[in-house]
Amino acid sequence: MDHFAIRSGAHRLSSLSPNVIDLAERLIACASVTPARGSVFDTLEGMLQPLGFAVHRFIAGGEAGADEEEGGPVENLFAIRQGPPGSRHLAFAGHVDVVPPGDGWTSDAFAPERRGNLLYGRGAVDMKGAIAAMVAAVADIPANAGTLSFIITGDEEGPAVHGTRALIDLMRARGEVPDLCLVGEPTSVTRLGDMMKIGRRGSVNIFLEVAGTQGHVAYPHLADNPAPRLVALLAELDALELDQGTNWFQPSNLEITDIAIGNPAHNVIPGAARARISIRFNDLHTGAELGRRVTEIAARHGGTARPIISGEPFLTPPGDFSRMVAGAITAETGLVPEASTSGGTSDARFLKALCPVIEFGLLNATMHKRDEAVAIEDLEALVRIYRRIVHAAFE
Amino acid sequence: MDHFAIRSGAHRLSSLSPNVIDLAERLIACASVTPARGSVFDTLEGMLQPLGFAVHRFIAGGEAGADEEEGGPVENLFAIRQGPPGSRHLAFAGHVDVVPPGDGWTSDAFAPERRGNLLYGRGAVDMKGAIAAMVAAVADIPANAGTLSFIITGDEEGPAVHGTRALIDLMRARGEVPDLCLVGEPTSVTRLGDMMKIGRRGSVNIFLEVAGTQGHVAYPHLADNPAPRLVALLAELDALELDQGTNWFQPSNLEITDIAIGNPAHNVIPGAARARISIRFNDLHTGAELGRRVTEIAARHGGTARPIISGEPFLTPPGDFSRMVAGAITAETGLVPEASTSGGTSDARFLKALCPVIEFGLLNATMHKRDEAVAIEDLEALVRIYRRIVHAAFE
Repeated sequence: MDHFAIRSGAHRLSSLSPNVIDLAERLIACASVTPARGSVFDTLEGMLQPLGFAVHRFIAGGEAGADEEEGGPVENLFAIRQGPPGSRHLAFAGHVDVVPPGDGWTSDAFAPERRGNLLYGRGAVDMKGAIAAMVAAVADIPANAGTLSFIITGDEEGPAVHGTRALIDLMRARGEVPDLCLVGEPTSVTRLGDMMKIGRRGSVNIFLEVAGTQGHVAYPHLADNPAPRLVALLAELDALELDQGTNWFQPSNLEITDIAIGNPAHNVIPGAARARISIRFNDLHTGAELGRRVTEIAARHGGTARPIISGEPFLTPPGDFSRMVAGAITAETGLVPEASTSGGTSDARFLKALCPVIEFGLLNATMHKRDEAVAIEDLEALVRIYRRIVHAAFE
Repeated sequence: MDHFAIRSGAHRLSSLSPNVIDLAERLIACASVTPARGSVFDTLEGMLQPLGFAVHRFIAGGEAGADEEEGGPVENLFAIRQGPPGSRHLAFAGHVDVVPPGDGWTSDAFAPERRGNLLYGRGAVDMKGAIAAMVAAVADIPANAGTLSFIITGDEEGPAVHGTRALIDLMRARGEVPDLCLVGEPTSVTRLGDMMKIGRRGSVNIFLEVAGTQGHVAYPHLADNPAPRLVALLAELDALELDQGTNWFQPSNLEITDIAIGNPAHNVIPGAARARISIRFNDLHTGAELGRRVTEIAARHGGTARPIISGEPFLTPPGDFSRMVAGAITAETGLVPEASTSGGTSDARFLKALCPVIEFGLLNATMHKRDEAVAIEDLEALVRIYRRIVHAAFE
């Protein structure tokens, strides 16, 4: 591969590139509250097809009789532009669904509006802005540079059961599995480029229940109050030290997120006591192992535990790919991004099954909030960073 | 006072006494779900006036702007038949309100029905049957034997704020305070006469709250989860040994009756955690002292405590009055009643301020349940027991 050809090609074509602000505005204008289908995908397809991408769209989930908690129906899009046989395959991954706007916006959440240096609209940073930057970044990459793809779901903010997981199935079935995957989640904290994610903790919610025998508080010998056993169970769980962290992960953390007896009668000993805990865990654990461990502790207190695993942890250990991403960021911003594994889960938990995954994107300060906004100059810089990553991947 | 005259008078008049079954049926037929007013009091007044009682009725509570939790408006009745100056004053106390019937009755809860040896109806044992027995018992006591009174409220099953307490105020204002008071609550357990109450434990509900700072479970360092502190607080409270009981009281008992965070979001650390405990305590404690003690413990865990005292304990130590009641029971039933202080609270907690109080009445097995029923022979025996107590009090 000829580096110079790519670089000079990029320079020559840059004036023909679509404007990232225009692209972002067109995506934001689609009111694609999760789960997303239809127009937002039409819009994205209309951007990718002229650039030579083969676009595959399908709808998944929401069948009659399906589990309602799985959500759907939801639309997904996989777009690929094949490079020469044997060339490297870099995938951009993300989502075009957004969380509901909520109240109190200064301007319509789905009518993108520039005020000063900012572009406002739901999805500006999470993550239609990043998808616009990806499209703009690849626009002037010659087709013979390498294989590029877009892995875009309409269900990342929802249950995520029929989203990226279904896209992974499709890519495997087509034999079009990427070598590297960049997820465009908003990972920057105070300045564009200060943080990328090389991993995410896993997450499991565990529902605890201790049964007893209801009765009157005046006759406790005829009842069996489950509350003291739940309290002892929670005290033991709260005292657990799961680990002390790793080189790349902070210590795993357990939080009591709910306790619920729900007994309005002041003179009644309750018949059951329930609680819920949430564990965010690093790669020293699996959700299944933690579920078993909590279940055993619950059993010793006469209780039961029902674990619901939201995601296993992922880690792309620092190496070539992270150096590639960090180098692109530093070249544009002068910042050395922190290689973080903090925060919530993302679809990277699924994509890690395909290839090394790193997440990098815009500032997350306004994500999921009212008046979500992106700085115009950040959008433009993100295009240049993403383009540098493509160049580095195809070197 | 001439014992023989009273006894023989009783024998002479017994055929003129109102029939206790008829009286009970007339009271049960009034649908006097708490708070009670009106017809059930008209009916009772119609029974007492012909026997020479001066009947005072008044309505209390429920004024515009009053605290709704105090209930009302509720009717109360104080009826008195003065004996010779300086004669002893025995009061019968009780309530004509009943708990709601609930579903599943074999016959209408407010249409008294005899089936076999039982009389069915809401209030049959708690405690219209006992009031009927009181009326029948005093019917053939000569007016010169001593002073008799009835302290009857329409709000014992409810908040009890404007019930017996208001009657006590009235009696004090009239200077008609009894020397002895017998409460007709259903105290018998498996056979009429197996138990009387010489005391009751006090009761306090304490509302606990621990405040924290809400946040995302992925960023626990930005939040302050109050749940572990509430758990530690409850564990400490549950481990308290308040006392080891007394000669007359079982050990005081603390129950966790509710824990409520009420946080539906699986990924959110809650901002506050609440719980409620109920303490039933003997006369080694006061509600105020226990409230202070729990408040201090809560404060050490960063929490607050709000005690609501339902009633202080009362004890009428075994002595002349209890021997009088027990003797009457044994003479009729052959049983030596247990002098108990177990169970819930009753209006005796208020009446103890006036004079020694003892509770004795029918079997409590069906109280507050569907198909509440009293054995006909128990009702007739209770008339004879109450009459013996009157005779003993006036000896």
